[in-house]
Amino acid sequence: MRDDALQRLRQVAPGVSFLIAHNAQEALSLAPEADAAYNFCTPDLIQAAPRLRWIQVGSAGVDRYPFQEMRERGITFTNAKEIYGIQLADHNMAFILAFSRQLPFLFRAQEKGVWENRRNFPPGELAGQTLLVVGLGGTGLETARRAAGFGLRITATRRRTDLPKPDFVEAVHPPERLHDLLPEADWVAVCTPLTKDTRDSFHDAEFDLMKRTAYIVCVTRGGIINTEALLRAIDAGKIAGAGLDVTDPEPLPAGHPLWTRKNVILTPHASGHSPHSGERMFDLFCENVRRFAAGEPLLNGVDLELQY
Amino acid sequence: MRDDALQRLRQVAPGVSFLIAHNAQEALSLAPEADAAYNFCTPDLIQAAPRLRWIQVGSAGVDRYPFQEMRERGITFTNAKEIYGIQLADHNMAFILAFSRQLPFLFRAQEKGVWENRRNFPPGELAGQTLLVVGLGGTGLETARRAAGFGLRITATRRRTDLPKPDFVEAVHPPERLHDLLPEADWVAVCTPLTKDTRDSFHDAEFDLMKRTAYIVCVTRGGIINTEALLRAIDAGKIAGAGLDVTDPEPLPAGHPLWTRKNVILTPHASGHSPHSGERMFDLFCENVRRFAAGEPLLNGVDLELQY
Repeated sequence: MRDDALQRLRQVAPGVSFLIAHNAQEALSLAPEADAAYNFCTPDLIQAAPRLRWIQVGSAGVDRYPFQEMRERGITFTNAKEIYGIQLADHNMAFILAFSRQLPFLFRAQEKGVWENRRNFPPGELAGQTLLVVGLGGTGLETARRAAGFGLRITATRRRTDLPKPDFVEAVHPPERLHDLLPEADWVAVCTPLTKDTRDSFHDAEFDLMKRTAYIVCVTRGGIINTEALLRAIDAGKIAGAGLDVTDPEPLPAGHPLWTRKNVILTPHASGHSPHSGERMFDLFCENVRRFAAGEPLLNGVDLELQY
Repeated sequence: MRDDALQRLRQVAPGVSFLIAHNAQEALSLAPEADAAYNFCTPDLIQAAPRLRWIQVGSAGVDRYPFQEMRERGITFTNAKEIYGIQLADHNMAFILAFSRQLPFLFRAQEKGVWENRRNFPPGELAGQTLLVVGLGGTGLETARRAAGFGLRITATRRRTDLPKPDFVEAVHPPERLHDLLPEADWVAVCTPLTKDTRDSFHDAEFDLMKRTAYIVCVTRGGIINTEALLRAIDAGKIAGAGLDVTDPEPLPAGHPLWTRKNVILTPHASGHSPHSGERMFDLFCENVRRFAAGEPLLNGVDLELQY
């Protein structure tokens, strides 16, 4: 941690001592004194820290954290949701626009130095098409906001049906309605976190319900879309293509058939990258440290039962 | 022309006779009777049609039409401006997002079947960056509308400074201000038509003023950006890259150096393609036929002096 960052933390929470660990072992040795931890979150650490009441992590996806241990100890768990939504949404839209304007085909033509004949590829137009956002959370909301400017009709699923519907979304449905919504979507943006409830939520049955002209994109976590079922759907022409920044397994192994499918765009878990997310994350952390020291409710709490 | 299309035309203008020419020669032989022409616009045709008062064309770019002959005869000339703006703007945004999320680099990694290390490419984030729309006409306005959803700060040039400023554009300046605006732009979307005034409007001096991290995109016409100057700017690292759907010469010849530049995306004049533009164009044509028959002012008039 840089000096100026530490100085800022000391300013927002003058009564708090900050201990810096450079690796997991140092963290373990400092754990007995810790009331809170940032970016150290293992069963070992929790066991070694009897005073621990709060853990903040710098990731939005929290599918690999020790929820049982945190539940048993009543630890408050906060994550980076909405820190990455901006660039993840940019990445979703990059996939959608690349497919709509036939960029994979045209990239390959460019690699060959060929000015393609317009009859060989049919670019689309987003206006009037339907985008289904599966999971209208941080990433889903930012994706919908961007998509609205293109005249896309936007439907969404969201567990929290009590939250207000944004103006730019036509309708928000509970997750159980997914199968009713899939047949009318030209684009499906899977924006849910990976939890026990969402694993494999796109499998053969879901691809069967999609239009043969529809594309699916996902930048949140591999495993929500079942890889083998996706490959079957692609190879059978059940859907038009897929844009994936996350895979299962990840990294996608060399030689995996998805690498060579012409209507699949693969990027290597790059959607979270942005020159600004570190700054946003540190802003959030400072605010949560201030709240923690003041005994106020923390931002970005993760539900330890729902696990997101 | 399909029967149902002809039927619709007869409905909107019952007193008008429609003559169908299948090629330029048939058009010439029918010309003496014509008060108006659709998609036939040559000096020969104008000369052969003494009654001709109106020509409608189905293209938005009108840089190759016989303006002098139309001026001399006082012929009203209407084009397809705003018919293609929707898909041209989608294409502009496809270029911008592809560059921002590093898709050219990642496409090449995918072709090699390689899951790239995140240290080898730095994706950006559009929010907070500045987009300069050069020419806030049909395509420029639709591009700005889409860009606004990404949190881009948008500045623009437009000859018609009397027109109202859209909410999603921060400021609209006259074209003469271009040099003041270029240094602050992260993205430059060249959306002007090609006219005698805009030819070569991006040359060495303009690239010298751009940020080294900035990209330029163009989907309207080759020749507005000077090809040789662009290549020099790319090769000298004066700008970060270019997305071009139009080139000069066009098609870009085999072996042209632009084909192989890693930070150039080339598409073969594909931005105007959409499954819906034919329908939009015919709607416009029907409305203009109705107006012509009723003696009302036509939509989409082209200024024969400004030539757009």
